[in-house]
Amino acid sequence: MLMDGVDFLSDRHAWSAIGRKAMAVNLSDCAAMAVQPRAALCAVCLHQDLDLSDGLELLRGAQELGLQHDCPVVGGDTNAWRGSTVIAITVAAEIAIASQPILRSGARPGDGIWISGPLGGSILGRHLWFEPRVTLALTLRERLRPTAMIDISDGLALDLWRLLDASGCGATLQRAALEGALHADAIELSRQDNRSPLDHALYDGEDYELLITLPPHVDPAECDELGLRRIGVVHDQAGTVLMQSASRTEALPIRGWEHWT
Amino acid sequence: MLMDGVDFLSDRHAWSAIGRKAMAVNLSDCAAMAVQPRAALCAVCLHQDLDLSDGLELLRGAQELGLQHDCPVVGGDTNAWRGSTVIAITVAAEIAIASQPILRSGARPGDGIWISGPLGGSILGRHLWFEPRVTLALTLRERLRPTAMIDISDGLALDLWRLLDASGCGATLQRAALEGALHADAIELSRQDNRSPLDHALYDGEDYELLITLPPHVDPAECDELGLRRIGVVHDQAGTVLMQSASRTEALPIRGWEHWT
Repeated sequence: MLMDGVDFLSDRHAWSAIGRKAMAVNLSDCAAMAVQPRAALCAVCLHQDLDLSDGLELLRGAQELGLQHDCPVVGGDTNAWRGSTVIAITVAAEIAIASQPILRSGARPGDGIWISGPLGGSILGRHLWFEPRVTLALTLRERLRPTAMIDISDGLALDLWRLLDASGCGATLQRAALEGALHADAIELSRQDNRSPLDHALYDGEDYELLITLPPHVDPAECDELGLRRIGVVHDQAGTVLMQSASRTEALPIRGWEHWT
Repeated sequence: MLMDGVDFLSDRHAWSAIGRKAMAVNLSDCAAMAVQPRAALCAVCLHQDLDLSDGLELLRGAQELGLQHDCPVVGGDTNAWRGSTVIAITVAAEIAIASQPILRSGARPGDGIWISGPLGGSILGRHLWFEPRVTLALTLRERLRPTAMIDISDGLALDLWRLLDASGCGATLQRAALEGALHADAIELSRQDNRSPLDHALYDGEDYELLITLPPHVDPAECDELGLRRIGVVHDQAGTVLMQSASRTEALPIRGWEHWT
């Protein structure tokens, strides 16, 4: 569910971009479980001063991205009201019989921790235009058998914590690896606000990259080919997330974008 | 999608009643197609001043009614914001293989038009506490083979028009039959606002009874046993809805609760 003023700004963003994002966050949830999205329902309450054409642009943005992933909008519910616009898309997804979706809860000590792309600073624009990792997730399931996955919607630190919590494990992250996985936006934003790029990579929301745990003995060349970066390892100390650098190891504070504030 | 101030009033209704209604309108949509609801997703953006207990009451109301119809809430999305509360429930339903859902588009000239219960004046309270006709709809499909159905959410006149429009037909309603199908609330409300009870039965929203077309030669005793009332007949004059009384026949104005205003 996306709300005007929280997840998008209708006075700044085009309605087609907003509709695209509403679809993209749902497709990213499908990617996180490595399931194939098949059909979407789009319910909206539009602010009453909007034109019908705004609503149609919203739908067009959702529909175009959905169709790229074989997931058309097949229905929904259209309302107008005095409040700000709210969009709720629901996606039905498919998984092969005898197959299982990938959950947050399957990580095991010794698994490597990987990410599907660079992190941080998405607020500079990527939060609206990210590519949901549906195709990558289906390929990953086929070729590398991830033990657990989650999409990074609320910041690496918080979503890693969620995955570890569900799996009953802890983790050690490599600071050098994370510093090699900073998005250019994290560096740019750091210039503006004096928070470190690493801080942005750990705590900014809406990266929508996949956070993946893979068995210990995967082929690094294959991971590299798929654009994965290894950032740490799962250990058996539940509730403990450590950050390791050449000189020291310290506990990582867990915080991020919490919806209930 | 239900919005505070439009579909419910949070300063007047209990959150459990509001959650129940959000589930009920979805179950009523399932009833309209004679499909068995199986699982619900509940997405909410709660006004930020609400307590967590309000959100839990909302969920409890939805869950209790869902479970009565074998349709538990299995997931969702919880958000808080400055705006008024919005609830979007999505239901996945099941239909037997080789069976078909009942659509709006199957009515044929000669079919009888039936309703599942008395109409009008739901604003006096029924709009919040109605029973979705899921079980009745499944029985109807089995025993009487309806050609088309719709649930009356926006008033008999408008929803009948939608059904006829989808079927490419027209209809003649019997005034005497409709006057025998007035809800006590329609009569009560008529005393308050000087609109006729029949006007309320035709144009009030949120009855959530089923409007059903049945083949011409159904057994009236069986319909009676299921609580159905015959109110008219389908004819082949597309776009024409007539109201017939002993003395005259006149065209019925089509209006009702339109969401886009």
